[in-house]
Amino acid sequence: MTAFAELRRTVCDLHAELTRNHLVTWTSGNVSGRVPGEDLFVIKPSGVSYDDLTPESIVVCDLDGKLVDGELSPSSDTDAHAYVYRNMPEVGGVVHTHSTYATAWAARAEPIPCVLTAMADEFGGEIPVGPFALIGDDSIGRGIVATLSGHRSPAVLMQNHGVFTIGKDARAAVKAAVMCEDVARTVHIARQLGEPVPIPAEDIDRLYDRYQNAYGQ
Amino acid sequence: MTAFAELRRTVCDLHAELTRNHLVTWTSGNVSGRVPGEDLFVIKPSGVSYDDLTPESIVVCDLDGKLVDGELSPSSDTDAHAYVYRNMPEVGGVVHTHSTYATAWAARAEPIPCVLTAMADEFGGEIPVGPFALIGDDSIGRGIVATLSGHRSPAVLMQNHGVFTIGKDARAAVKAAVMCEDVARTVHIARQLGEPVPIPAEDIDRLYDRYQNAYGQ
Amino acid sequence: MTAFAELRRTVCDLHAELTRNHLVTWTSGNVSGRVPGEDLFVIKPSGVSYDDLTPESIVVCDLDGKLVDGELSPSSDTDAHAYVYRNMPEVGGVVHTHSTYATAWAARAEPIPCVLTAMADEFGGEIPVGPFALIGDDSIGRGIVATLSGHRSPAVLMQNHGVFTIGKDARAAVKAAVMCEDVARTVHIARQLGEPVPIPAEDIDRLYDRYQNAYGQ
Amino acid sequence: MTAFAELRRTVCDLHAELTRNHLVTWTSGNVSGRVPGEDLFVIKPSGVSYDDLTPESIVVCDLDGKLVDGELSPSSDTDAHAYVYRNMPEVGGVVHTHSTYATAWAARAEPIPCVLTAMADEFGGEIPVGPFALIGDDSIGRGIVATLSGHRSPAVLMQNHGVFTIGKDARAAVKAAVMCEDVARTVHIARQLGEPVPIPAEDIDRLYDRYQNAYGQ
Repeated sequence: MTAFAELRRTVCDLHAELTRNHLVTWTSGNVSGRVPGEDLFVIKPSGVSYDDLTPESIVVCDLDGKLVDGELSPSSDTDAHAYVYRNMPEVGGVVHTHSTYATAWAARAEPIPCVLTAMADEFGGEIPVGPFALIGDDSIGRGIVATLSGHRSPAVLMQNHGVFTIGKDARAAVKAAVMCEDVARTVHIARQLGEPVPIPAEDIDRLYDRYQNAYGQ
Repeated sequence: MTAFAELRRTVCDLHAELTRNHLVTWTSGNVSGRVPGEDLFVIKPSGVSYDDLTPESIVVCDLDGKLVDGELSPSSDTDAHAYVYRNMPEVGGVVHTHSTYATAWAARAEPIPCVLTAMADEFGGEIPVGPFALIGDDSIGRGIVATLSGHRSPAVLMQNHGVFTIGKDARAAVKAAVMCEDVARTVHIARQLGEPVPIPAEDIDRLYDRYQNAYGQ
Repeated sequence: MTAFAELRRTVCDLHAELTRNHLVTWTSGNVSGRVPGEDLFVIKPSGVSYDDLTPESIVVCDLDGKLVDGELSPSSDTDAHAYVYRNMPEVGGVVHTHSTYATAWAARAEPIPCVLTAMADEFGGEIPVGPFALIGDDSIGRGIVATLSGHRSPAVLMQNHGVFTIGKDARAAVKAAVMCEDVARTVHIARQLGEPVPIPAEDIDRLYDRYQNAYGQ
Repeated sequence: MTAFAELRRTVCDLHAELTRNHLVTWTSGNVSGRVPGEDLFVIKPSGVSYDDLTPESIVVCDLDGKLVDGELSPSSDTDAHAYVYRNMPEVGGVVHTHSTYATAWAARAEPIPCVLTAMADEFGGEIPVGPFALIGDDSIGRGIVATLSGHRSPAVLMQNHGVFTIGKDARAAVKAAVMCEDVARTVHIARQLGEPVPIPAEDIDRLYDRYQNAYGQ
């Protein structure tokens, strides 16, 4: 149970990155993390404010999204997270936000073009748009998985809705959510006064390869 | 008097959500809450800075907006709040702000179209515009009540002025004010570079129904 | 000397409102206050960061802008402040900023139209543009005084430069600077997607009269 | 070694100005400073979050960008910093960011026109654009040096990438990075609603001369 306790703390704490980076309003975003070696993940409870989150309030669900441990109802986005964990075994963390600029691209169903070297580094090309899907069944999860499978981008803009990001763990998914909003904002602002210069596809490839293999410690 | 003290504290504290969410500048917004079971409500005093607000400084008014208890003059928007409490018995909280993006829509007298699932959840459709009305009599209150009666939206954009929101209690009205600015900003930014994709009316209905009945704890 | 000490503290502390309201970057804005009953005013020293400001670091100048007391050189905008105090005896405080949205209007030499009731309240009409003027002599001060004399607005947008505001004391001038940026931003954002609805001149007059006479405690 | 320790602390602390001024996201920007009298400089380690930076974590490199002292790998931008120190002996500090508005101009490969007196003060004219260059060799460094040599501006917008700034020391380079984003934002916003008024070249010269020689203490 100590591994659970630690993962609950990590996922709890990562929500502070959502607020610090202004990705969420009121209770609108959530982070989850897969429990290593088990068909389980931990996720934010539904409708709880970020100030009130504690490691103990983080709930544990199985890969069908059913509550396994915890006092509170899981996030209303739990089915979408569960679908991703069930169908993308390499994914260890999922984040969902309605961050402003990324959601604005999503409202127009317009992918974000790759016109920044930082975007080539992190996303390896454009950030794609997933389908319009209603909450309540597997539609959102299916849309995420269909869009991101075989795609370099760890972020998808779900039409009229917001962003889902994936990563090898919860922290990587949070980083993708933070960088997604950052490039969504910068490219939006660039586009307001004209057309950004495209980056040649082979340069995007080179940047992506180097960043994925050589960056950091 | 303990119920009064508690409501004064709640309403006092909720003003911190207005500043935290950047909905207000200097002393320009206010929160009120109906006193359960009495023809009274509590409201921010006029022109007092948010740093200086204390539960004791929150004043008590009757439903004609007359000061009943408190050392300070009530908010200059008190007549509008009072009119709402007098004419909408289901309302337990009212919030007024000049939050930037919502007020920008109000300056153009343009309703915010429902192009985000979060907006369908919370507002059940577009956020409507109320009439231009001068302060000093019941004009603002009448405009709020006429616009919101029978409307799903708990928020109205008063032309050239700002936002009024209602809720079952003061906290719900604050949440509506926070979400109103959030969607006003996202839809504005989406519109800057093209037309957002509309959401079909029947999907708005489904989202609204689910959110009002199943979200949270 | 206690009155000096108190005014120095007040003016020192008011700079925190400039940073809190995001009106200044690095060391670019300043607040001054007239010493009651004397031909003197206190002002920020030049190029000192806001974190390092102390009441003791605030300098005292005469109405020609000459340093009378203090260890540091006065703000490079001191001549403009001095000119205002010399020529507008009713003014007790002056603030200068390069706040983003107001300066953007100033860069286009475009007055901010009065399309918000809060703007009618505080500014009584449009916020006017003053001339392009170089630093180094009385040009800026003359431009401020020529533009604001006989005008309701306590704020002037100096072309290609930034904002100067005046008030009965330093706090009132700070409030005008805060509200100027607030309405500059909201009207800018309103204009991005169309034309705001004008407010009839007689309604602007009514709003201005009421606010100047009845608002606050 | 005390001079090293002090420079490491200074450079470590200056990263807090990047976060405070919202110039960086996650781990995307870095500050370096030349070691006086030695062919060495200190720089941020790669991929370390700003919260975790300590003076001890700051690494020391030679002018070929090779690690000389420190536990961690140097910033992935180290080659660019090193090239600048090797080729511009007057430079004592270098800063790199992807700050939003400046990077938006860079994405369009469009220099920022000098339409603000604060911009004339600090940059002496427009902020120029450097070439598109891939990371991994001296391309970025060569682009920075080619663009800034003989130019008044201490900032260059590297196409599709971000900003590099230089200064006599690390603090001056940080100030240039802060002011670059500030003017990039204000000029962007001014341009959204029309054309800013140009400042005559001779007035830009006068403003630049005065500011470089007379401002501050």
